[in-house]
Amino acid sequence: LDYQHVQVPFEITLWIMLASLAKIGFHLYNKLPSVVPESCLLIFVGLIMGGIIYGLNDRSPPVMDSDIFFLYLLPPIVLDAGYFMPSRPFFENIGTILLYAVVGTIWNVFGIGFSLYGICQVKAFRLQDVSLLHNLLFGSLIAAVDPVAVLAVFEEIHVNEKLHILVFGESLLNDAVTVVLYKLFRSFCEMPTIKSVDVFAGVGKFFVVGLGGVLVGLSFGFTAAFTTRFTKDIRVIEPLFVFLYSYLSYLTAEMFHLSGIVAIISCAMGMKRYVEANISLKSHTTVKYFMKMWSSVSDTLIFIFLGVSTIGENHEWNWPYICFTVIFCLVWRALGVLVLTFFVNRFHVNTITSKDQFIIAYGGLRGAICFSLVFLLPDFHRKKLFIAATTVVILFTVFVQGMTIRPLVDLLAVKRKRESAPTVGEQIHIRFLDHLLAGIEDISGHWGQYYWKDKLEYFNSKYLQKILLREYDQPKSSIVLLYEKLERKHAIELAQAGQLGHGLAHPSFLSSDRTVITDQKLEDTPNPDVLDNMQEILARNLYRIRRTGPAYNRHTLPGDSEPTEHAKEILILRHKSL
Amino acid sequence: LDYQHVQVPFEITLWIMLASLAKIGFHLYNKLPSVVPESCLLIFVGLIMGGIIYGLNDRSPPVMDSDIFFLYLLPPIVLDAGYFMPSRPFFENIGTILLYAVVGTIWNVFGIGFSLYGICQVKAFRLQDVSLLHNLLFGSLIAAVDPVAVLAVFEEIHVNEKLHILVFGESLLNDAVTVVLYKLFRSFCEMPTIKSVDVFAGVGKFFVVGLGGVLVGLSFGFTAAFTTRFTKDIRVIEPLFVFLYSYLSYLTAEMFHLSGIVAIISCAMGMKRYVEANISLKSHTTVKYFMKMWSSVSDTLIFIFLGVSTIGENHEWNWPYICFTVIFCLVWRALGVLVLTFFVNRFHVNTITSKDQFIIAYGGLRGAICFSLVFLLPDFHRKKLFIAATTVVILFTVFVQGMTIRPLVDLLAVKRKRESAPTVGEQIHIRFLDHLLAGIEDISGHWGQYYWKDKLEYFNSKYLQKILLREYDQPKSSIVLLYEKLERKHAIELAQAGQLGHGLAHPSFLSSDRTVITDQKLEDTPNPDVLDNMQEILARNLYRIRRTGPAYNRHTLPGDSEPTEHAKEILILRHKSL
Repeated sequence: LDYQHVQVPFEITLWIMLASLAKIGFHLYNKLPSVVPESCLLIFVGLIMGGIIYGLNDRSPPVMDSDIFFLYLLPPIVLDAGYFMPSRPFFENIGTILLYAVVGTIWNVFGIGFSLYGICQVKAFRLQDVSLLHNLLFGSLIAAVDPVAVLAVFEEIHVNEKLHILVFGESLLNDAVTVVLYKLFRSFCEMPTIKSVDVFAGVGKFFVVGLGGVLVGLSFGFTAAFTTRFTKDIRVIEPLFVFLYSYLSYLTAEMFHLSGIVAIISCAMGMKRYVEANISLKSHTTVKYFMKMWSSVSDTLIFIFLGVSTIGENHEWNWPYICFTVIFCLVWRALGVLVLTFFVNRFHVNTITSKDQFIIAYGGLRGAICFSLVFLLPDFHRKKLFIAATTVVILFTVFVQGMTIRPLVDLLAVKRKRESAPTVGEQIHIRFLDHLLAGIEDISGHWGQYYWKDKLEYFNSKYLQKILLREYDQPKSSIVLLYEKLERKHAIELAQAGQLGHGLAHPSFLSSDRTVITDQKLEDTPNPDVLDNMQEILARNLYRIRRTGPAYNRHTLPGDSEPTEHAKEILILRHKSL
Repeated sequence: LDYQHVQVPFEITLWIMLASLAKIGFHLYNKLPSVVPESCLLIFVGLIMGGIIYGLNDRSPPVMDSDIFFLYLLPPIVLDAGYFMPSRPFFENIGTILLYAVVGTIWNVFGIGFSLYGICQVKAFRLQDVSLLHNLLFGSLIAAVDPVAVLAVFEEIHVNEKLHILVFGESLLNDAVTVVLYKLFRSFCEMPTIKSVDVFAGVGKFFVVGLGGVLVGLSFGFTAAFTTRFTKDIRVIEPLFVFLYSYLSYLTAEMFHLSGIVAIISCAMGMKRYVEANISLKSHTTVKYFMKMWSSVSDTLIFIFLGVSTIGENHEWNWPYICFTVIFCLVWRALGVLVLTFFVNRFHVNTITSKDQFIIAYGGLRGAICFSLVFLLPDFHRKKLFIAATTVVILFTVFVQGMTIRPLVDLLAVKRKRESAPTVGEQIHIRFLDHLLAGIEDISGHWGQYYWKDKLEYFNSKYLQKILLREYDQPKSSIVLLYEKLERKHAIELAQAGQLGHGLAHPSFLSSDRTVITDQKLEDTPNPDVLDNMQEILARNLYRIRRTGPAYNRHTLPGDSEPTEHAKEILILRHKSL
């Protein structure tokens, strides 16, 4: 037996296996996941495992290594979040999200820090040795809402899209603020005296960290898109580039002390559109599947480790400090949301309702990021107290808030997410309104959201697409993509039912004049089912639009139909060969 | 800048990125890959990089770590090989493959070892200090044909399936022999005296290592299949189990000093059939894609590292020893193939032609396994000579043999692989003949290949499928699977061309009586294209077969059509809802 030799990969594989089996186990009982969030169950499994390890070895089980967490477990989750981020609601609410993420987090950090310092002044609590800086440092790590925990809970309760993106976007973007404040206070702790210059440098650093992350991410994202232009002959390594470049963006950002989370999200959002167009359908399925898989496993491992790490002798218990921490976390977040939303609502027509505000405040879950940060603290005599307080806050938010948020959403009748995907008709209307509003803003000279969106789209179609896309012909609009997806799904269903092979036998389909076919087709259906007909007309028309050019793009002239004719001929030839 | 922190993942990612970009680079020039095998080019890139590192640092570049090779780079390639192994030709030729792998490898080891010992006795060569045991040890590591190198070359030259499986199967299965002989001689080297008991123990150990590997692999494979029964609710982690279990089988085998390669191949071949039936189509695409991707990246990294490791000061040059090593490797392999094939051909009707024999002998490429094994040798004063000889043999086989084998295959007009997939008709005939032969063997009382295959199939459908498959109804025959695949491909092509949506509008398709439709359909096609019609008839008929039960299975009674009726009804309902 030679265990030493294979230990590292063997134990990693076993941990992942355990996580996957735990996941399967929960889903075997259908009722369990609908009552308790998975994150709670996983922490519970971790607690039991930690207890067993503690009982057997009689010493604290190993805590989650912060390096492992930040370098290996966090990136897949954030990548997944960024890649599947619904970009429309995100950019529509970017202002509000940034306000919550930046101002809200700073508010929470200072609020919690100062009020805990106030508690420390009470002599009866025996906490006078905890300085203001230490309290602020603690505040900076405990204030940030955790994307992993938020995602785990909010994915299950299906609130409306805007509410979801507000909480989730905040939890992602506050990383830049947390990183800066945490490092600032940590370096202040080690400095003998603090000058006002240092404070201003800290404020400046925030912009560097955030915007630097965005820049690093976007440059890697565009490089990724550019690389996938050349993978036509070796389709099989296409998915690799998506993962490699986004991981590199994360690591590079971390290396330069920028926000890795912001970088990987920018990278994923920047490359998605072009990569999707360049790589094959199968590669894309693989990318999506593997992203989901990895993030799901990472997520599971994080919560299990969180449970395991809780058990042990790392804690120093102090009732007042811990209780007040929980209370202040709740109170300051609620206050912050109320105040910020008041300002947001003054400038928006589509306001955030008080129910939504409650869920935003209540959904501020803390998770593994706080936990890793508290272990990264420099050693000082009260570190164990901070660890205990952080653990309690995490367990409280994940268990109490995570388990009660679903009943509360039901009770308050918070607006839910619509279940069905938008229809093709809706998409057309949304697109139409976008163009209309862009036109109105253009005429009125108001540089609003639609104006910038339109400019960006112009820049994209004029320059970026030409560089980053392999087959640059018509920019496919999202409607056409949706339609193609529906068609493909339909085709596979037909194939599975053995209903295929008739369309081709009909000789008239092989003729090139499509308009005639459509009419003829509409006439010779003896039992015209209304729905079927409508679907067919839409399908036909959309198909014709796709071939006759980008009717939705304001920036191209309707004249240049040469590539369209070419594509048409290819299609006809392909049909004949079939 | 904090490079230390991210160094490990950053460098790994960069290496993988380099490998992928190198791959893209080669495929940009279409002519290059058709002349030079990719493996040669990659080694060349590695040599250049090694030269640069050597030039800059003025010391040997780091050699490929044997642990990294055996634990991380080799498993993906072997897993891919095992999972996509064409099982029919493999099992049809298993006897010949085992003969080559076991007897052939032993022949080569002792042949090369003893004749090199003979060379060492020549005083002029100054090699008298290399003992017989050391020569045998060297023979044991240099004799084994390398699956990675073989795969890299043979995938490009497209020889016929039997020839391919003979060389490739041998390269995979000789791992058990190599492991045993290498470890045996290595322990002999360290022993003061060798008893005859040790030699017999070595022979016995071979069976333990080989069969133990098979057992470990199969048990993990069946566990994997069993696990995927329960993943219906969390499709997204299905692909994970395929990778986790096969990797665990490899690690477990290595841990117990069994053959990891044999284990992972048995695992992959054992689970493939059941896993494929259990997991969703998208999961399966992901599994296949990721396997190919990983193996392709591993492969690239191995050859680049091989090049990098070649540069440096690890070599001791001795012309006669190195030249004779290359010559003996070629001569003993050629002799071995000739002698073994002589015996094989006496017992087979379908003989191995002399052209095929030449390619088998010539295709015995050495690669990274030898290279890693030679670095794992215990330190002794002639280790550098062995390293030099191994490097030369690898470079000679990969460059000279690898580059000339394609022109030779052309020149000798070796039978090529058929380009097209077997048609449905051919598959039916093959299946029919299998049953016929099984019947004949049954009646004549001869326990031949078909008899055992049939028994295995019976055991499979009677017990294994019931345990391992989630939806155990009809075992889908390979013909139906092929047909389904063709249909799906066809459907997606139709959808992409925008030709869909007519089949449904035709009202008669919604009626449940299918036979009527077929006839009616055949009649009302005014321009009956012969090919189209044939395809359609086949498709219809196959579909009917699929619904009316497993007509190809000898072991089920034709009576129990209840689940068939049920499936039919579901299909009809689905159509109506569409």
